[in-house]
Amino acid sequence: MSSFYHGRRVLITGGLGFIGSNLAIELQKLGARLTLLDSMIPAYGACLENIEPIRNAVTVNFSDVRDQHSLAYLVRDQEVIFSLAGQVSHIDSMHEPLVDLDINCRSQLSLLECCRRENPGVRLVLASTRQVYGKPQFLPVTEEHPIAPTDINGINKWAAEMYFTLYAQVYGMSTVSLRLTNTYGPRMDLRNSKKGFVGVFIKQALTGQPIRIFGTGAQRRDFNYVSDVVHALAMVGESRLFCGQSFNLGHDEHFTLREFVELLSEKCPVDFELIPFPDELRAIDIGDYFADYSRFRAVTGWRPCVGLSEGLQRTIMHYRQPFETAA
Amino acid sequence: MSSFYHGRRVLITGGLGFIGSNLAIELQKLGARLTLLDSMIPAYGACLENIEPIRNAVTVNFSDVRDQHSLAYLVRDQEVIFSLAGQVSHIDSMHEPLVDLDINCRSQLSLLECCRRENPGVRLVLASTRQVYGKPQFLPVTEEHPIAPTDINGINKWAAEMYFTLYAQVYGMSTVSLRLTNTYGPRMDLRNSKKGFVGVFIKQALTGQPIRIFGTGAQRRDFNYVSDVVHALAMVGESRLFCGQSFNLGHDEHFTLREFVELLSEKCPVDFELIPFPDELRAIDIGDYFADYSRFRAVTGWRPCVGLSEGLQRTIMHYRQPFETAA
Repeated sequence: MSSFYHGRRVLITGGLGFIGSNLAIELQKLGARLTLLDSMIPAYGACLENIEPIRNAVTVNFSDVRDQHSLAYLVRDQEVIFSLAGQVSHIDSMHEPLVDLDINCRSQLSLLECCRRENPGVRLVLASTRQVYGKPQFLPVTEEHPIAPTDINGINKWAAEMYFTLYAQVYGMSTVSLRLTNTYGPRMDLRNSKKGFVGVFIKQALTGQPIRIFGTGAQRRDFNYVSDVVHALAMVGESRLFCGQSFNLGHDEHFTLREFVELLSEKCPVDFELIPFPDELRAIDIGDYFADYSRFRAVTGWRPCVGLSEGLQRTIMHYRQPFETAA
Repeated sequence: MSSFYHGRRVLITGGLGFIGSNLAIELQKLGARLTLLDSMIPAYGACLENIEPIRNAVTVNFSDVRDQHSLAYLVRDQEVIFSLAGQVSHIDSMHEPLVDLDINCRSQLSLLECCRRENPGVRLVLASTRQVYGKPQFLPVTEEHPIAPTDINGINKWAAEMYFTLYAQVYGMSTVSLRLTNTYGPRMDLRNSKKGFVGVFIKQALTGQPIRIFGTGAQRRDFNYVSDVVHALAMVGESRLFCGQSFNLGHDEHFTLREFVELLSEKCPVDFELIPFPDELRAIDIGDYFADYSRFRAVTGWRPCVGLSEGLQRTIMHYRQPFETAA
């Protein structure tokens, strides 16, 4: 990583959450002057323990991205903003769609408006999601794949991406979106079972509960270890070359859910069973998914460094040790 | 038109606006039991004069679609809901993007949620817009054309459409969206210059002001007379066949803006001049646009009956006569 971040003022929304805290720890090493914004909504997984290694070196601001006035104040003078605050549960987005809209869609537009008025030269990085594609019509999924979300979360994240693109096109602002796939690693929220199967499976393995796989376990997926995602975010935060574009992240390795669980049980022995898909999850399930990330690799040189076996090993070690000594 | 609407309970949001009032007048003739919801926001063009011919035969409810509680109450017991309330100015959507989001995106999701909880069997018809396509990549624009809105209004309308599709897919609700192109005719709002060139040009012609065409006047467009749009809306409101789908409206005739003005000046003599595009309009302009509406024609048999010459003649006559005797 270059010296770009040394002394730079960087704001991370959702900075005490899973990816936000990992990004903060990395950027603090690079010398960034960090402000971490977080609303501390209990179900969303943020906690001060996540930033224990850098607690005294960063400014923590407890506020909600839905609050326009505090947000307008916080964006002033920042040089890079990582917009990571979000509601990430697909199932919760169906139960409380207007909350998901306010957090994932309205707040992103509000952030762009704040920046347009207060700080139009800032670089803005959005953490988007593979969920915008819906059920893949072909594999691997490229950025040209049709947009057809199967849940409210995917629609709202897509609207947010489009706002980011529009503000680049119309106002010349420096925005970019990364479409994340399954991200896992230290500091992921294991308490909330609605955030996807990876956290659920890891928690079940750690607590010795049998893992319950919905369906046949034959669904294939790609997985990014959080340090690779942090690296990708940091790279796009450095550059003005990507104005308004969206890029897939992904991995060359793909695994079925069953293979994932088998690999996990090598690190942390656990039984598993196949059970029928609950109806409300089947309705929004996307089946097989893995991304083609070659467009992003071509322009940045990024590729994931951590394979699933090593990543799971590091993750299991993290949760078995005190926070201070972990990855 | 069949006898479907006779005795049916129908709610029209934006019922005192341009298209809403024309639809109301038509459905009242067919025997519908109408409730017209309107927020009467001054700039949006609603007025009681629009429904003068049917004032005593319908229930008028003054409220805002952003207010969830009154909306939840109003959707109960309805058999068909036409969701026409909206902010339609592209330029206002850029100046007040969060207002546009609340009205065009959040309120549509709120409407769907209200119906899912209170009245999941209702038929829901959304008035969407060609603006979801952005600048055409090919002509005529089919429903397969990429979605790439050039303004906030287009993004928010697209999100609304996706919510409509999702609620059909996941909950089996009966929803459909029509993507309207330039619609004109009696009761269109001529007071607000931000609602597109058609109203502006007609008002300039009626008041004897020279018409100012931005750019070369060579941009080609299609135009639907409001009675044809009303007919299309009424048709989809009758049927459960279109669950979650979106269809283009359009016209076989296409005209450049200059041809439009020349035709208009045959009905109502007026001078015109070409002036450079203002910057903020150029940034969101879509150039040539006309739609392929063959998918909608194939499933419904709909085609526009009124050509531009006749439609302009009727429109001019409407505005030169008292409301009671007009089309």
